[in-house]
Amino acid sequence: MLKSYTKIRVRYGETDRMKYLHHGNYALYYEEARSKMLRELGVSYRDIEDFGVIMPVLEMTSRFYIPAKFDELLTIITYIKEPPKVRFKFEYEILNENNELVNTGTTTLVFADSKTGKPIRTPQIFKDLFFDKFS
Amino acid sequence: MLKSYTKIRVRYGETDRMKYLHHGNYALYYEEARSKMLRELGVSYRDIEDFGVIMPVLEMTSRFYIPAKFDELLTIITYIKEPPKVRFKFEYEILNENNELVNTGTTTLVFADSKTGKPIRTPQIFKDLFFDKFS
Amino acid sequence: MLKSYTKIRVRYGETDRMKYLHHGNYALYYEEARSKMLRELGVSYRDIEDFGVIMPVLEMTSRFYIPAKFDELLTIITYIKEPPKVRFKFEYEILNENNELVNTGTTTLVFADSKTGKPIRTPQIFKDLFFDKFS
Amino acid sequence: MLKSYTKIRVRYGETDRMKYLHHGNYALYYEEARSKMLRELGVSYRDIEDFGVIMPVLEMTSRFYIPAKFDELLTIITYIKEPPKVRFKFEYEILNENNELVNTGTTTLVFADSKTGKPIRTPQIFKDLFFDKFS
Repeated sequence: MLKSYTKIRVRYGETDRMKYLHHGNYALYYEEARSKMLRELGVSYRDIEDFGVIMPVLEMTSRFYIPAKFDELLTIITYIKEPPKVRFKFEYEILNENNELVNTGTTTLVFADSKTGKPIRTPQIFKDLFFDKFS
Repeated sequence: MLKSYTKIRVRYGETDRMKYLHHGNYALYYEEARSKMLRELGVSYRDIEDFGVIMPVLEMTSRFYIPAKFDELLTIITYIKEPPKVRFKFEYEILNENNELVNTGTTTLVFADSKTGKPIRTPQIFKDLFFDKFS
Repeated sequence: MLKSYTKIRVRYGETDRMKYLHHGNYALYYEEARSKMLRELGVSYRDIEDFGVIMPVLEMTSRFYIPAKFDELLTIITYIKEPPKVRFKFEYEILNENNELVNTGTTTLVFADSKTGKPIRTPQIFKDLFFDKFS
Repeated sequence: MLKSYTKIRVRYGETDRMKYLHHGNYALYYEEARSKMLRELGVSYRDIEDFGVIMPVLEMTSRFYIPAKFDELLTIITYIKEPPKVRFKFEYEILNENNELVNTGTTTLVFADSKTGKPIRTPQIFKDLFFDKFS
Protein backbone atom coordinates (compact mmCIF):
# COMPACT_ATOMS: atom_id res chain seq x y z
CA MET A 1 0.00 0.00 0.00
CA LEU A 2 1.30 3.44 -0.93
CA LYS A 3 0.43 6.56 1.02
CA SER A 4 0.85 10.28 0.44
CA TYR A 5 -0.01 13.45 2.37
CA THR A 6 -1.28 16.72 0.91
CA LYS A 7 -2.18 19.91 2.74
CA ILE A 8 -4.93 22.11 1.28
CA ARG A 9 -6.35 25.25 2.84
CA VAL A 10 -10.06 25.85 2.20
CA ARG A 11 -10.63 28.91 -0.01
CA TYR A 12 -13.39 31.39 0.67
CA GLY A 13 -14.95 30.86 -2.74
CA GLU A 14 -15.06 27.12 -2.12
CA THR A 15 -17.50 27.53 0.76
CA ASP A 16 -21.25 27.85 0.26
CA ARG A 17 -24.10 29.61 2.06
CA MET A 18 -24.14 26.86 4.72
CA LYS A 19 -20.64 28.22 5.53
CA TYR A 20 -19.12 24.80 4.77
CA LEU A 21 -16.71 23.71 2.05
CA HIS A 22 -19.14 22.87 -0.76
CA HIS A 23 -19.31 19.12 -1.38
CA GLY A 24 -18.60 19.56 -5.09
CA ASN A 25 -15.12 20.88 -4.35
CA TYR A 26 -13.83 17.69 -2.76
CA ALA A 27 -13.28 16.31 -6.28
CA LEU A 28 -10.70 19.08 -6.81
CA TYR A 29 -8.98 18.27 -3.53
CA TYR A 30 -8.80 14.58 -4.39
CA GLU A 31 -7.39 15.53 -7.77
CA GLU A 32 -4.73 17.80 -6.31
CA ALA A 33 -3.82 15.05 -3.82
CA ARG A 34 -3.41 12.32 -6.43
CA SER A 35 -1.45 14.63 -8.77
CA LYS A 36 0.94 15.30 -5.90
CA MET A 37 1.18 11.60 -5.10
CA LEU A 38 2.05 10.73 -8.70
CA ARG A 39 4.62 13.53 -8.78
CA GLU A 40 6.24 12.10 -5.62
CA LEU A 41 6.28 8.66 -7.24
CA GLY A 42 8.10 10.13 -10.22
CA VAL A 43 5.43 10.69 -12.88
CA SER A 44 3.91 14.04 -13.53
CA TYR A 45 0.36 13.94 -14.79
CA ARG A 46 1.40 16.71 -17.18
CA ASP A 47 4.00 14.34 -18.69
CA ILE A 48 1.47 11.55 -19.00
CA GLU A 49 -0.73 13.71 -21.19
CA ASP A 50 2.29 14.70 -23.24
CA PHE A 51 2.66 10.96 -24.00
CA GLY A 52 -0.85 11.01 -25.44
CA VAL A 53 -2.48 9.35 -22.47
CA ILE A 54 -5.45 10.79 -20.57
CA MET A 55 -6.90 9.40 -17.38
CA PRO A 56 -10.63 10.07 -17.24
CA VAL A 57 -12.55 9.32 -14.07
CA LEU A 58 -14.82 6.26 -14.20
CA GLU A 59 -16.22 6.36 -10.68
CA MET A 60 -16.13 8.65 -7.69
CA THR A 61 -17.59 8.18 -4.21
CA SER A 62 -17.56 10.51 -1.25
CA ARG A 63 -18.76 10.35 2.32
CA PHE A 64 -18.99 13.48 4.44
CA TYR A 65 -18.54 13.29 8.23
CA ILE A 66 -17.77 16.74 9.61
CA PRO A 67 -18.02 19.95 7.60
CA ALA A 68 -14.79 21.66 6.60
CA LYS A 69 -14.70 25.42 7.02
CA PHE A 70 -13.10 28.42 5.39
CA ASP A 71 -9.39 28.82 6.08
CA GLU A 72 -8.99 25.38 7.69
CA LEU A 73 -5.83 23.58 6.70
CA LEU A 74 -6.94 20.10 5.71
CA THR A 75 -4.74 17.02 5.35
CA ILE A 76 -5.62 14.67 2.51
CA ILE A 77 -4.15 11.19 2.94
CA THR A 78 -4.14 9.37 -0.38
CA TYR A 79 -3.78 5.62 -0.72
CA ILE A 80 -2.99 3.37 -3.65
CA LYS A 81 -3.79 -0.13 -2.44
CA GLU A 82 -3.21 -2.02 -5.68
CA PRO A 83 -1.10 -1.41 -8.78
CA PRO A 84 -3.13 -0.05 -11.72
CA LYS A 85 -4.58 -2.60 -14.13
CA VAL A 86 -7.47 -1.64 -16.36
CA ARG A 87 -8.60 0.58 -13.52
CA PHE A 88 -6.52 2.74 -11.24
CA LYS A 89 -8.07 3.41 -7.85
CA PHE A 90 -7.16 6.09 -5.31
CA GLU A 91 -8.64 6.27 -1.82
CA TYR A 92 -8.69 9.35 0.39
CA GLU A 93 -9.12 10.36 3.99
CA ILE A 94 -9.41 14.03 4.85
CA LEU A 95 -8.61 15.29 8.34
CA ASN A 96 -9.08 18.77 9.78
CA GLU A 97 -6.70 20.68 12.05
CA ASN A 98 -8.06 18.83 15.10
CA ASN A 99 -7.35 15.51 13.41
CA GLU A 100 -11.05 14.78 13.03
CA LEU A 101 -12.22 12.80 10.03
CA VAL A 102 -13.91 15.18 7.61
CA ASN A 103 -14.37 13.01 4.56
CA THR A 104 -13.48 9.74 2.90
CA GLY A 105 -13.60 9.15 -0.83
CA THR A 106 -12.45 7.13 -3.80
CA THR A 107 -11.68 7.91 -7.42
CA THR A 108 -11.31 5.20 -10.05
CA LEU A 109 -9.57 6.23 -13.24
CA VAL A 110 -9.01 4.48 -16.56
CA PHE A 111 -6.37 5.04 -19.21
CA ALA A 112 -7.38 6.35 -22.62
CA ASP A 113 -5.78 7.59 -25.81
CA SER A 114 -5.90 11.39 -25.84
CA LYS A 115 -6.62 11.51 -29.59
CA THR A 116 -9.36 8.91 -29.86
CA GLY A 117 -10.65 8.92 -26.29
CA LYS A 118 -10.69 5.11 -26.43
CA PRO A 119 -9.59 3.03 -23.43
CA ILE A 120 -6.05 1.64 -23.57
CA ARG A 121 -4.04 -0.77 -21.43
CA THR A 122 -1.95 0.39 -18.52
CA PRO A 123 0.88 2.42 -20.06
CA GLN A 124 4.37 0.93 -19.62
CA ILE A 125 5.44 3.94 -17.55
CA PHE A 126 2.88 2.94 -14.89
CA LYS A 127 3.82 -0.73 -15.05
CA ASP A 128 7.45 0.19 -14.44
CA LEU A 129 6.54 2.60 -11.70
CA PHE A 130 4.59 0.13 -9.63
CA PHE A 131 6.58 -2.98 -10.59
CA ASP A 132 8.38 -3.37 -7.28
CA LYS A 133 6.12 -1.39 -5.00
CA PHE A 134 3.53 -4.00 -4.10
CA SER A 135 5.68 -7.09 -3.72
CA MET B 1 -41.32 7.03 -7.49
CA LEU B 2 -41.07 10.69 -8.39
CA LYS B 3 -39.25 11.91 -11.46
CA SER B 4 -38.12 15.31 -12.71
CA TYR B 5 -36.30 16.61 -15.79
CA THR B 6 -33.72 19.40 -15.91
CA LYS B 7 -31.83 20.74 -18.92
CA ILE B 8 -28.31 22.10 -18.38
CA ARG B 9 -25.95 23.33 -21.06
CA VAL B 10 -22.25 22.66 -20.39
CA ARG B 11 -20.32 25.89 -19.81
CA TYR B 12 -16.88 26.47 -21.28
CA GLY B 13 -15.32 27.04 -17.88
CA GLU B 14 -16.74 23.73 -16.67
CA THR B 15 -14.64 21.76 -19.15
CA ASP B 16 -11.03 20.78 -18.48
CA ARG B 17 -7.94 20.25 -20.60
CA MET B 18 -9.23 16.81 -21.66
CA LYS B 19 -11.98 18.89 -23.35
CA TYR B 20 -14.63 17.12 -21.26
CA LEU B 21 -16.99 18.44 -18.60
CA HIS B 22 -14.82 18.13 -15.49
CA HIS B 23 -16.05 15.35 -13.19
CA GLY B 24 -16.14 17.71 -10.19
CA ASN B 25 -18.90 19.78 -11.81
CA TYR B 26 -21.48 17.00 -11.87
CA ALA B 27 -22.17 17.75 -8.19
CA LEU B 28 -23.40 21.21 -9.26
CA TYR B 29 -25.62 19.71 -11.96
CA TYR B 30 -27.13 17.24 -9.49
CA GLU B 31 -27.72 20.12 -7.10
CA GLU B 32 -29.42 22.29 -9.71
CA ALA B 33 -31.58 19.30 -10.73
CA ARG B 34 -32.74 18.50 -7.19
CA SER B 35 -33.41 22.19 -6.40
CA LYS B 36 -35.61 22.30 -9.48
CA MET B 37 -37.36 19.08 -8.49
CA LEU B 38 -38.14 20.39 -5.00
CA ARG B 39 -39.39 23.67 -6.50
CA GLU B 40 -41.74 21.69 -8.77
CA LEU B 41 -42.97 19.72 -5.75
CA GLY B 42 -43.76 22.98 -4.01
CA VAL B 43 -40.84 23.62 -1.65
CA SER B 44 -38.07 26.00 -2.46
CA TYR B 45 -34.73 25.13 -0.97
CA ARG B 46 -34.38 28.83 -0.24
CA ASP B 47 -37.52 28.68 1.91
CA ILE B 48 -36.26 25.60 3.73
CA GLU B 49 -33.18 27.48 4.88
CA ASP B 50 -35.36 30.39 5.92
CA PHE B 51 -37.07 27.91 8.28
CA GLY B 52 -33.71 27.25 9.91
CA VAL B 53 -33.14 23.91 8.22
CA ILE B 54 -30.06 23.02 6.19
CA MET B 55 -29.58 19.87 4.15
CA PRO B 56 -25.93 18.90 4.11
CA VAL B 57 -24.75 16.09 1.85
CA LEU B 58 -23.86 12.83 3.60
CA GLU B 59 -22.89 10.72 0.61
CA MET B 60 -22.38 11.19 -3.10
CA THR B 61 -21.59 8.64 -5.80
CA SER B 62 -21.01 9.13 -9.49
CA ARG B 63 -20.34 6.88 -12.44
CA PHE B 64 -19.12 8.31 -15.74
CA TYR B 65 -19.99 6.58 -19.02
CA ILE B 66 -19.49 8.98 -21.90
CA PRO B 67 -17.80 12.37 -21.61
CA ALA B 68 -20.00 15.44 -21.84
CA LYS B 69 -18.66 18.29 -23.96
CA PHE B 70 -18.79 22.04 -24.08
CA ASP B 71 -22.11 23.49 -25.26
CA GLU B 72 -23.96 20.16 -25.12
CA LEU B 73 -27.46 20.42 -23.73
CA LEU B 74 -27.70 17.67 -21.13
CA THR B 75 -30.87 16.24 -19.61
CA ILE B 76 -30.71 15.35 -15.94
CA ILE B 77 -33.44 12.96 -14.84
CA THR B 78 -33.82 13.04 -11.07
CA TYR B 79 -35.58 10.34 -9.07
CA ILE B 80 -36.88 10.23 -5.51
CA LYS B 81 -37.62 6.57 -4.88
CA GLU B 82 -38.57 6.80 -1.21
CA PRO B 83 -39.96 9.55 1.02
CA PRO B 84 -37.30 11.21 3.18
CA LYS B 85 -36.69 9.73 6.65
CA VAL B 86 -33.45 10.39 8.43
CA ARG B 87 -31.85 10.41 5.01
CA PHE B 88 -33.12 11.87 1.79
CA LYS B 89 -31.80 10.24 -1.33
CA PHE B 90 -31.83 11.55 -4.90
CA GLU B 91 -30.76 9.51 -7.91
CA TYR B 92 -29.74 10.91 -11.28
CA GLU B 93 -29.32 9.87 -14.88
CA ILE B 94 -27.71 12.28 -17.30
CA LEU B 95 -28.30 11.96 -21.05
CA ASN B 96 -26.67 13.89 -23.89
CA GLU B 97 -28.32 15.28 -27.02
CA ASN B 98 -28.11 11.86 -28.70
CA ASN B 99 -29.88 10.29 -25.74
CA GLU B 100 -26.74 8.45 -24.70
CA LEU B 101 -26.15 7.80 -21.02
CA VAL B 102 -23.42 10.17 -19.82
CA ASN B 103 -23.54 9.68 -16.09
CA THR B 104 -25.47 8.19 -13.19
CA GLY B 105 -25.21 9.40 -9.62
CA THR B 106 -26.74 9.61 -6.19
CA THR B 107 -26.78 12.21 -3.44
CA THR B 108 -27.91 11.42 0.09
CA LEU B 109 -28.78 14.41 2.26
CA VAL B 110 -29.63 14.76 5.93
CA PHE B 111 -31.58 17.47 7.74
CA ALA B 112 -29.81 19.69 10.24
CA ASP B 113 -30.48 22.78 12.32
CA SER B 114 -28.89 25.76 10.59
CA LYS B 115 -27.79 27.32 13.89
CA THR B 116 -26.27 24.31 15.61
CA GLY B 117 -25.45 22.17 12.60
CA LYS B 118 -26.88 19.17 14.50
CA PRO B 119 -29.00 16.56 12.71
CA ILE B 120 -32.74 16.89 13.13
CA ARG B 121 -35.74 14.75 12.16
CA THR B 122 -37.51 15.16 8.85
CA PRO B 123 -39.16 18.60 8.99
CA GLN B 124 -42.97 18.57 8.95
CA ILE B 125 -42.98 20.40 5.62
CA PHE B 126 -41.31 17.38 4.00
CA LYS B 127 -43.57 14.90 5.74
CA ASP B 128 -46.59 16.77 4.43
CA LEU B 129 -45.11 17.07 0.99
CA PHE B 130 -44.49 13.37 0.51
CA PHE B 131 -47.41 12.12 2.59
CA ASP B 132 -49.54 10.96 -0.30
CA LYS B 133 -46.96 10.61 -3.02
CA PHE B 134 -45.68 7.10 -2.30
CA SER B 135 -48.88 5.28 -1.38
CA MET C 1 -25.17 47.89 -31.13
CA LEU C 2 -26.22 44.28 -30.67
CA LYS C 3 -28.00 43.05 -27.58
CA SER C 4 -28.86 39.65 -26.17
CA TYR C 5 -30.66 38.36 -23.06
CA THR C 6 -29.72 35.30 -21.00
CA LYS C 7 -31.43 33.96 -17.88
CA ILE C 8 -29.28 32.18 -15.29
CA ARG C 9 -30.45 30.86 -11.94
CA VAL C 10 -27.87 31.06 -9.13
CA ARG C 11 -26.73 27.60 -8.00
CA TYR C 12 -26.25 26.72 -4.36
CA GLY C 13 -22.62 25.77 -4.88
CA GLU C 14 -21.97 29.14 -6.51
CA THR C 15 -22.75 31.01 -3.29
CA ASP C 16 -20.17 31.52 -0.55
CA ARG C 17 -20.29 31.84 3.23
CA MET C 18 -21.47 35.46 2.92
CA LYS C 19 -24.58 33.83 1.34
CA TYR C 20 -23.99 35.76 -1.89
CA LEU C 21 -23.14 34.54 -5.36
CA HIS C 22 -19.33 34.41 -5.17
CA HIS C 23 -17.73 37.14 -7.26
CA GLY C 24 -15.52 34.64 -9.09
CA ASN C 25 -18.55 33.00 -10.69
CA TYR C 26 -19.64 36.05 -12.66
CA ALA C 27 -16.98 35.15 -15.23
CA LEU C 28 -18.91 31.93 -15.93
CA TYR C 29 -22.17 33.83 -16.28
CA TYR C 30 -20.61 36.31 -18.72
CA GLU C 31 -19.23 33.36 -20.66
CA GLU C 32 -22.56 31.57 -20.85
CA ALA C 33 -24.21 34.83 -21.93
CA ARG C 34 -21.75 35.54 -24.76
CA SER C 35 -21.85 31.91 -25.96
CA LYS C 36 -25.60 32.22 -26.20
CA MET C 37 -25.32 35.55 -28.00
CA LEU C 38 -22.92 34.12 -30.58
CA ARG C 39 -25.23 31.11 -31.05
CA GLU C 40 -28.14 33.48 -31.71
CA LEU C 41 -26.02 35.37 -34.23
CA GLY C 42 -25.32 32.13 -36.02
CA VAL C 43 -21.88 31.02 -34.84
CA SER C 44 -21.40 28.39 -32.22
CA TYR C 45 -18.29 28.80 -30.14
CA ARG C 46 -17.92 25.03 -30.44
CA ASP C 47 -17.71 25.39 -34.23
CA ILE C 48 -15.17 28.19 -33.95
CA GLU C 49 -12.82 25.92 -32.06
CA ASP C 50 -13.39 23.19 -34.64
CA PHE C 51 -12.01 25.68 -37.20
CA GLY C 52 -8.80 25.85 -35.17
CA VAL C 53 -9.54 29.23 -33.60
CA ILE C 54 -9.56 29.89 -29.86
CA MET C 55 -10.68 33.09 -28.19
CA PRO C 56 -8.69 33.66 -25.01
CA VAL C 57 -9.67 36.46 -22.67
CA LEU C 58 -7.35 39.47 -22.64
CA GLU C 59 -9.13 41.63 -20.09
CA MET C 60 -12.05 41.35 -17.73
CA THR C 61 -13.62 43.95 -15.47
CA SER C 62 -16.48 43.64 -13.05
CA ARG C 63 -18.37 45.98 -10.76
CA PHE C 64 -20.68 44.65 -8.08
CA TYR C 65 -23.72 46.67 -6.95
CA ILE C 66 -26.17 44.41 -5.14
CA PRO C 67 -25.42 40.85 -4.08
CA ALA C 68 -27.11 38.05 -6.00
CA LYS C 69 -28.51 35.22 -3.92
CA PHE C 70 -29.11 31.51 -4.21
CA ASP C 71 -32.00 30.53 -6.47
CA GLU C 72 -32.48 34.03 -7.91
CA LEU C 73 -33.16 34.08 -11.62
CA LEU C 74 -30.78 36.66 -13.03
CA THR C 75 -30.99 38.34 -16.42
CA ILE C 76 -27.70 38.99 -18.18
CA ILE C 77 -27.93 41.59 -20.93
CA THR C 78 -24.96 41.31 -23.27
CA TYR C 79 -23.88 44.04 -25.63
CA ILE C 80 -21.56 44.10 -28.63
CA LYS C 81 -20.99 47.75 -29.36
CA GLU C 82 -18.41 47.41 -32.13
CA PRO C 83 -17.57 44.70 -34.66
CA PRO C 84 -14.53 42.62 -33.65
CA LYS C 85 -11.14 43.79 -34.89
CA VAL C 86 -8.00 42.65 -33.15
CA ARG C 87 -10.04 42.68 -29.97
CA PHE C 88 -13.60 41.59 -29.45
CA LYS C 89 -15.37 43.24 -26.55
CA PHE C 90 -18.55 42.17 -24.78
CA GLU C 91 -20.31 44.28 -22.14
CA TYR C 92 -22.77 42.98 -19.57
CA GLU C 93 -25.47 44.18 -17.23
CA ILE C 94 -26.94 41.77 -14.73
CA LEU C 95 -30.38 42.38 -13.22
CA ASN C 96 -32.15 40.47 -10.46
CA GLU C 97 -35.82 39.48 -10.28
CA ASN C 98 -36.73 42.95 -8.98
CA ASN C 99 -34.99 44.52 -11.96
CA GLU C 100 -32.26 45.93 -9.75
CA LEU C 101 -28.75 46.28 -11.16
CA VAL C 102 -26.60 43.55 -9.64
CA ASN C 103 -23.44 43.81 -11.70
CA THR C 104 -21.83 45.30 -14.77
CA GLY C 105 -18.83 43.87 -16.53
CA THR C 106 -16.75 43.60 -19.67
CA THR C 107 -14.75 40.85 -21.32
CA THR C 108 -12.28 41.53 -24.11
CA LEU C 109 -11.22 38.54 -26.17
CA VAL C 110 -8.62 38.05 -28.86
CA PHE C 111 -8.42 35.47 -31.63
CA ALA C 112 -5.63 32.91 -31.61
CA ASP C 113 -4.58 29.78 -33.45
CA SER C 114 -5.55 26.75 -31.38
CA LYS C 115 -2.36 24.89 -32.31
CA THR C 116 0.24 27.59 -31.74
CA GLY C 117 -1.63 29.81 -29.30
CA LYS C 118 -0.44 32.81 -31.34
CA PRO C 119 -2.76 35.76 -32.03
CA ILE C 120 -4.41 35.82 -35.45
CA ARG C 121 -6.56 38.31 -37.33
CA THR C 122 -10.33 38.34 -37.09
CA PRO C 123 -11.46 35.12 -38.77
CA GLN C 124 -13.49 35.58 -41.96
CA ILE C 125 -16.53 33.99 -40.33
CA PHE C 126 -16.67 36.88 -37.86
CA LYS C 127 -16.10 39.48 -40.54
CA ASP C 128 -19.02 38.05 -42.50
CA LEU C 129 -21.15 37.81 -39.43
CA PHE C 130 -20.82 41.43 -38.43
CA PHE C 131 -20.45 42.86 -41.94
CA ASP C 132 -23.91 44.42 -42.13
CA LYS C 133 -24.78 44.66 -38.47
CA PHE C 134 -23.15 47.95 -37.56
CA SER C 135 -23.87 50.02 -40.66
CA MET D 1 3.55 49.74 0.22
CA LEU D 2 3.05 46.23 1.60
CA LYS D 3 3.89 43.13 -0.37
CA SER D 4 3.20 39.43 0.07
CA TYR D 5 4.02 36.25 -1.88
CA THR D 6 1.75 33.24 -2.38
CA LYS D 7 2.48 30.08 -4.33
CA ILE D 8 -0.44 28.29 -6.00
CA ARG D 9 -0.23 25.23 -8.22
CA VAL D 10 -2.78 25.10 -11.05
CA ARG D 11 -5.29 22.28 -10.54
CA TYR D 12 -6.45 20.08 -13.39
CA GLY D 13 -10.08 20.98 -12.85
CA GLU D 14 -9.18 24.67 -13.05
CA THR D 15 -8.08 24.37 -16.67
CA ASP D 16 -10.51 24.50 -19.58
CA ARG D 17 -10.67 22.95 -23.04
CA MET D 18 -8.15 25.52 -24.33
CA LYS D 19 -5.78 23.72 -21.89
CA TYR D 20 -5.23 26.98 -19.99
CA LEU D 21 -6.14 27.97 -16.44
CA HIS D 22 -9.68 29.27 -16.94
CA HIS D 23 -9.88 33.05 -16.55
CA GLY D 24 -12.69 32.76 -13.99
CA ASN D 25 -10.40 31.01 -11.52
CA TYR D 26 -8.02 33.93 -11.09
CA ALA D 27 -10.55 35.44 -8.65
CA LEU D 28 -9.96 32.46 -6.36
CA TYR D 29 -6.19 32.86 -6.62
CA TYR D 30 -6.41 36.55 -5.78
CA GLU D 31 -8.64 35.66 -2.84
CA GLU D 32 -6.27 33.02 -1.51
CA ALA D 33 -3.38 35.48 -1.90
CA ARG D 34 -5.07 38.31 0.01
CA SER D 35 -6.27 35.95 2.76
CA LYS D 36 -2.69 34.83 3.20
CA MET D 37 -1.45 38.42 3.22
CA LEU D 38 -3.94 39.42 5.92
CA ARG D 39 -2.98 36.35 7.95
CA GLU D 40 0.69 37.40 7.73
CA LEU D 41 -0.26 40.89 8.84
CA GLY D 42 -1.99 39.43 11.87
CA VAL D 43 -5.69 39.33 10.99
CA SER D 44 -7.41 36.23 9.85
CA TYR D 45 -10.32 36.79 7.53
CA ARG D 46 -12.11 34.09 9.52
CA ASP D 47 -11.75 36.23 12.66
CA ILE D 48 -13.02 39.31 10.85
CA GLU D 49 -16.27 37.55 10.02
CA ASP D 50 -16.54 36.36 13.61
CA PHE D 51 -16.55 40.07 14.55
CA GLY D 52 -19.63 40.52 12.38
CA VAL D 53 -17.79 42.16 9.49
CA ILE D 54 -17.90 40.95 5.91
CA MET D 55 -15.80 42.28 3.06
CA PRO D 56 -17.73 42.04 -0.21
CA VAL D 57 -15.97 42.79 -3.48
CA LEU D 58 -16.90 46.07 -5.13
CA GLU D 59 -14.68 45.92 -8.20
CA MET D 60 -12.36 43.46 -9.85
CA THR D 61 -10.14 43.86 -12.89
CA SER D 62 -7.89 41.37 -14.59
CA ARG D 63 -5.47 41.42 -17.50
CA PHE D 64 -4.16 38.21 -19.00
CA TYR D 65 -0.72 38.12 -20.63
CA ILE D 66 0.46 34.52 -20.92
CA PRO D 67 -1.73 31.49 -20.27
CA ALA D 68 -1.07 29.51 -17.12
CA LYS D 69 -1.09 25.75 -17.49
CA PHE D 70 -1.98 22.70 -15.47
CA ASP D 71 0.52 21.84 -12.74
CA GLU D 72 2.47 25.09 -13.04
CA LEU D 73 3.49 26.58 -9.74
CA LEU D 74 2.47 30.23 -9.92
CA THR D 75 3.65 33.06 -7.70
CA ILE D 76 1.07 35.65 -6.78
CA ILE D 77 2.59 38.92 -5.53
CA THR D 78 -0.01 40.93 -3.65
CA TYR D 79 0.31 44.63 -2.94
CA ILE D 80 -1.47 46.97 -0.58
CA LYS D 81 -0.49 50.44 -1.68
CA GLU D 82 -2.71 52.47 0.66
CA PRO D 83 -4.30 51.82 4.05
CA PRO D 84 -7.99 50.88 3.84
CA LYS D 85 -10.51 53.70 4.05
CA VAL D 86 -14.01 53.23 2.71
CA ARG D 87 -12.43 50.98 0.12
CA PHE D 88 -9.67 48.46 0.51
CA LYS D 89 -7.68 47.74 -2.63
CA PHE D 90 -5.37 44.84 -3.37
CA GLU D 91 -3.22 44.60 -6.49
CA TYR D 92 -1.74 41.41 -7.90
CA GLU D 93 0.98 40.23 -10.24
CA ILE D 94 1.13 36.58 -11.17
CA LEU D 95 4.35 35.01 -12.44
CA ASN D 96 4.92 31.53 -13.82
CA GLU D 97 7.88 29.22 -13.13
CA ASN D 98 9.96 31.02 -15.80
CA ASN D 99 9.28 34.33 -14.08
CA GLU D 100 7.10 35.48 -16.96
CA LEU D 101 4.18 37.78 -16.23
CA VAL D 102 0.99 35.75 -16.53
CA ASN D 103 -1.60 38.15 -15.14
CA THR D 104 -2.17 41.40 -13.30
CA GLY D 105 -5.30 42.25 -11.38
CA THR D 106 -6.98 44.31 -8.71
CA THR D 107 -9.73 43.68 -6.19
CA THR D 108 -11.45 46.48 -4.30
CA LEU D 109 -13.35 45.47 -1.20
CA VAL D 110 -15.66 47.35 1.14
CA PHE D 111 -16.58 46.68 4.75
CA ALA D 112 -20.14 45.70 5.64
CA ASP D 113 -22.14 44.49 8.61
CA SER D 114 -22.66 40.74 8.29
CA LYS D 115 -26.21 40.94 9.66
CA THR D 116 -27.57 43.85 7.65
CA GLY D 117 -25.24 43.74 4.66
CA LYS D 118 -24.95 47.54 4.93
CA PRO D 119 -21.60 49.30 4.40
CA ILE D 120 -19.72 50.28 7.56
CA ARG D 121 -16.59 52.31 8.25
CA THR D 122 -13.17 50.73 8.41
CA PRO D 123 -13.22 48.50 11.48
CA GLN D 124 -10.86 49.54 14.29
CA ILE D 125 -8.87 46.33 13.89
CA PHE D 126 -7.85 47.43 10.39
CA LYS D 127 -7.10 50.98 11.51
CA ASP D 128 -4.80 49.60 14.18
CA LEU D 129 -3.23 47.15 11.81
CA PHE D 130 -2.22 49.70 9.20
CA PHE D 131 -1.65 52.61 11.60
CA ASP D 132 2.13 52.59 11.37
CA LYS D 133 2.66 50.73 8.13
CA PHE D 134 2.35 53.57 5.63
CA SER D 135 4.12 56.38 7.46
